[in-house]
Amino acid sequence: MGAQNDTVIVEVKNSLLTENTAIHWHGIRQIGTPWFDGTEGVTQCPILPGDTFVYKFVVDRPGTYLYHAHYGMQRESGLYGSIRVALPDGESEPFAYDYDRSIILNDWFHKSTYEQAAGLSSIPFQWVGEPQSLLIQGKGRFDCSAANPPMKADVCNNTNPECSLYSTTVVPGKTYRLRISSLTALSALSFQIEGHNMTVVEADGHYVEPFVVKNLFIYSGETYSVLVKTDQDPSRNYWATTNVVSRNATTPPGLAIFNYYPNHPRRSPPTIPPSGPMWNDIEPRFNQSVAIKARRGHIYPPPATSDRVIVLLNTQNRVNGNVRWSVNNVSLNIPHTPYLIALKENLLRTFSQTPPPEGYDFKNYDIFPVQNNTNGTTSDAIYRLQLNSTVDIILQNANTMNPNNSETHPWHLHGHDFWILGYGKGKFDPINDPKKYNLVDPIMKNTVPVHPFGWTALRFKADNPGVWAFHCHIESHFFLGMGVVFEEGIERVGKLPSSIMGCGQTKHLLKP
Amino acid sequence: MGAQNDTVIVEVKNSLLTENTAIHWHGIRQIGTPWFDGTEGVTQCPILPGDTFVYKFVVDRPGTYLYHAHYGMQRESGLYGSIRVALPDGESEPFAYDYDRSIILNDWFHKSTYEQAAGLSSIPFQWVGEPQSLLIQGKGRFDCSAANPPMKADVCNNTNPECSLYSTTVVPGKTYRLRISSLTALSALSFQIEGHNMTVVEADGHYVEPFVVKNLFIYSGETYSVLVKTDQDPSRNYWATTNVVSRNATTPPGLAIFNYYPNHPRRSPPTIPPSGPMWNDIEPRFNQSVAIKARRGHIYPPPATSDRVIVLLNTQNRVNGNVRWSVNNVSLNIPHTPYLIALKENLLRTFSQTPPPEGYDFKNYDIFPVQNNTNGTTSDAIYRLQLNSTVDIILQNANTMNPNNSETHPWHLHGHDFWILGYGKGKFDPINDPKKYNLVDPIMKNTVPVHPFGWTALRFKADNPGVWAFHCHIESHFFLGMGVVFEEGIERVGKLPSSIMGCGQTKHLLKP
Repeated sequence: MGAQNDTVIVEVKNSLLTENTAIHWHGIRQIGTPWFDGTEGVTQCPILPGDTFVYKFVVDRPGTYLYHAHYGMQRESGLYGSIRVALPDGESEPFAYDYDRSIILNDWFHKSTYEQAAGLSSIPFQWVGEPQSLLIQGKGRFDCSAANPPMKADVCNNTNPECSLYSTTVVPGKTYRLRISSLTALSALSFQIEGHNMTVVEADGHYVEPFVVKNLFIYSGETYSVLVKTDQDPSRNYWATTNVVSRNATTPPGLAIFNYYPNHPRRSPPTIPPSGPMWNDIEPRFNQSVAIKARRGHIYPPPATSDRVIVLLNTQNRVNGNVRWSVNNVSLNIPHTPYLIALKENLLRTFSQTPPPEGYDFKNYDIFPVQNNTNGTTSDAIYRLQLNSTVDIILQNANTMNPNNSETHPWHLHGHDFWILGYGKGKFDPINDPKKYNLVDPIMKNTVPVHPFGWTALRFKADNPGVWAFHCHIESHFFLGMGVVFEEGIERVGKLPSSIMGCGQTKHLLKP
Repeated sequence: MGAQNDTVIVEVKNSLLTENTAIHWHGIRQIGTPWFDGTEGVTQCPILPGDTFVYKFVVDRPGTYLYHAHYGMQRESGLYGSIRVALPDGESEPFAYDYDRSIILNDWFHKSTYEQAAGLSSIPFQWVGEPQSLLIQGKGRFDCSAANPPMKADVCNNTNPECSLYSTTVVPGKTYRLRISSLTALSALSFQIEGHNMTVVEADGHYVEPFVVKNLFIYSGETYSVLVKTDQDPSRNYWATTNVVSRNATTPPGLAIFNYYPNHPRRSPPTIPPSGPMWNDIEPRFNQSVAIKARRGHIYPPPATSDRVIVLLNTQNRVNGNVRWSVNNVSLNIPHTPYLIALKENLLRTFSQTPPPEGYDFKNYDIFPVQNNTNGTTSDAIYRLQLNSTVDIILQNANTMNPNNSETHPWHLHGHDFWILGYGKGKFDPINDPKKYNLVDPIMKNTVPVHPFGWTALRFKADNPGVWAFHCHIESHFFLGMGVVFEEGIERVGKLPSSIMGCGQTKHLLKP
């Protein structure tokens, strides 16, 4: 999309008939332009049909980022893409490669997001289920025989060339930088290329101390660059595959073709696609998380101490008969007057001014069983942070409302990168675990998983005046309230553009 | 909903996730409140998710009216209902009945309106096709064996009691007023009750000189009251049926049960449902149209002459490769800055100020064949009428882009009732046909069909300051541009409520 320090202007024309939109620039910190973060209800009003909204922001760091709708469950309907920010002319990456490719992984549901959202809001609760397909760069297949009733192949279109798998052509003996990103609605994924190692060199726009994997675990909202050498037998093609981990999904693996020139790009490899890792083997996923460190020579160490620790217990609750996801048993309801405007323009009646909890009943709460009382509450309150303070976040996972079940949640922070201080298993120990924090070479990221029954500790500087969402990147989890909102330095936010206004109480700002 | 001269307040809370709405009060003239007509793009901005919009208007005439979404193709998704305005206490209708029932007829498509709209806007054009079912008071059945692939009955749910047909229970020996309305997306309908005559007494809120029919033809946007005597053998139930006319539809008839107490309400009548009239027999439809006259003692004769005659040739066109519906080969594009606000607030750059054509090439245009040149244009220009002038509208039907095909279009006028001066076959003769106008006892209505290859002449007083749509009530035809807009007395319109603003250029009216 541009090179580091470029100012990017994006005109978004909403040509939908009756539906609004808002586009989030995922991983772009929007320093000085918090109003262009594109998060409906947090930083802006929705863009109406017929309207053109102009986003204008600086891409201040090279790397791999994303853009996607941040409104209802619209991202999952397909409004997304990836962003590549180049280094300025004359500068070079700390690793060498011949070609640069971007691949987005996703999952795909047959049920529309409207139906999904209606089911999630229903009593009784109707879960979205597992995706019907996994997509590699937008392409995938559906097992027609699995349909109910079974579909004919010609309806399923498997033989239509337009429905062929994604194929990327490579030249033997070269090094490819593959920018792999995940925008799944639900699934945690493993990605691999048959017979090829991958060297991880970038994560969420930060250089990684290189390490080699056979398969890459990737969670929704994450981006990685890996280097792949085309050093295998060039007389054939190879499978690239992705499969669901962390959930016992019925979804068949996603397939693509890693095409060695001059083989035909659609020629099937002669082998059976490699089966990915076991869905319920948490160990390698945990280990990959721990393995990701900042690259030597590119280390920006975190502040040695923090000013505030917020513990976010990830819980599944029942609220007034609805199933909800929550933190500390409080499920977020995003109001229709965006927080940024409400705070800047002093519309404080539009949301609760009672601060949300800083933690949970640490002493008595057992994270392993289903709770006796799973009831939660909803709130639209937010965390207000001291500008330039250092904040630690402990994401603490726990059992859901099903016995022996804890899920993987990829948490994404808007407006900042955070240092990942550590991952742990079981309940976070506030005395001893901080002593093991990595303060030497922690990676910075904007999205991080908290593993089942585990914890993840983050640190960030609240140095970006604005209002920022921090939420589980699983579409249905965020829809069901799994998120929080941080405010910092609202008094330092510049004059808001009127283009972000026009909804909720901000309409009254705009008196005729 | 209330009695004549009541002020009605309706709070519309948009609880959709990402979709806006606007609600039109169909048949309510909104005298003095043109901003509450509920027509997106004409009288208001859309209502955003989370917003509550308050409509406030006077129901100044007793009778049967409708409400429905007037935004995109949202009406067809199911946002509609009927309105019953009673006479003030102490007054009585000029006909007697024991019970009062309302029945809405509709057609139902399996394809969502999003898909339909996408297909209609595509090149090549993808027509919506015929509806899968006809609904009587929201209930209908689908022929599972007709699905591709065929569906199992348990998926189709035909045996589920929730899917049972609509049944209305009647007591023998009484007179029922049935308020029948149609909100079909596409279909012209015939409605009948096996073995029972119907006496037509009201049309679109106006008393009709009573006449008896075996079956009632009804077009989208029309409402009728009929009186039905329960004078048949009370030991059984009877079918109420509706079927498509004017189109050679594959849609099976809609069925309901006219249940004589104390037979069980779901007991099937012992007979085969009566087959309706032939779809292509235009004669009885034309005759019913002509038969509808104002009731003696309730005649409000029209002005004897008019100040202006506008001829609206109904055409199907190709515009830049798209199939469109048009009048006088001009297809309406409704802008995103509502006309009412644009005109009142002098935002005249938001739409073309070149007036649309007053007619077509009357001398040379042959309405019967497909035209050699079917190309049309789009415009967002409107007709500006002199306040309190009398306007004649000649709706002239013609061939579509398919040979020997002319469709039935129900035209609905907002903000007014019109007198129906006459119907004719073939091309309107401007010299001789006006001499046959019924100026004695014409019915007033708000919706009127123009029959295939025929014409319909209307007269109305432009005495309601505001901006008003006049359009074909077929959802896909209006979506494809089959409508016009009238402005009258904009200078007499009161201060606009800010609640209707917030979209398009009206956002700039609302500067922070």
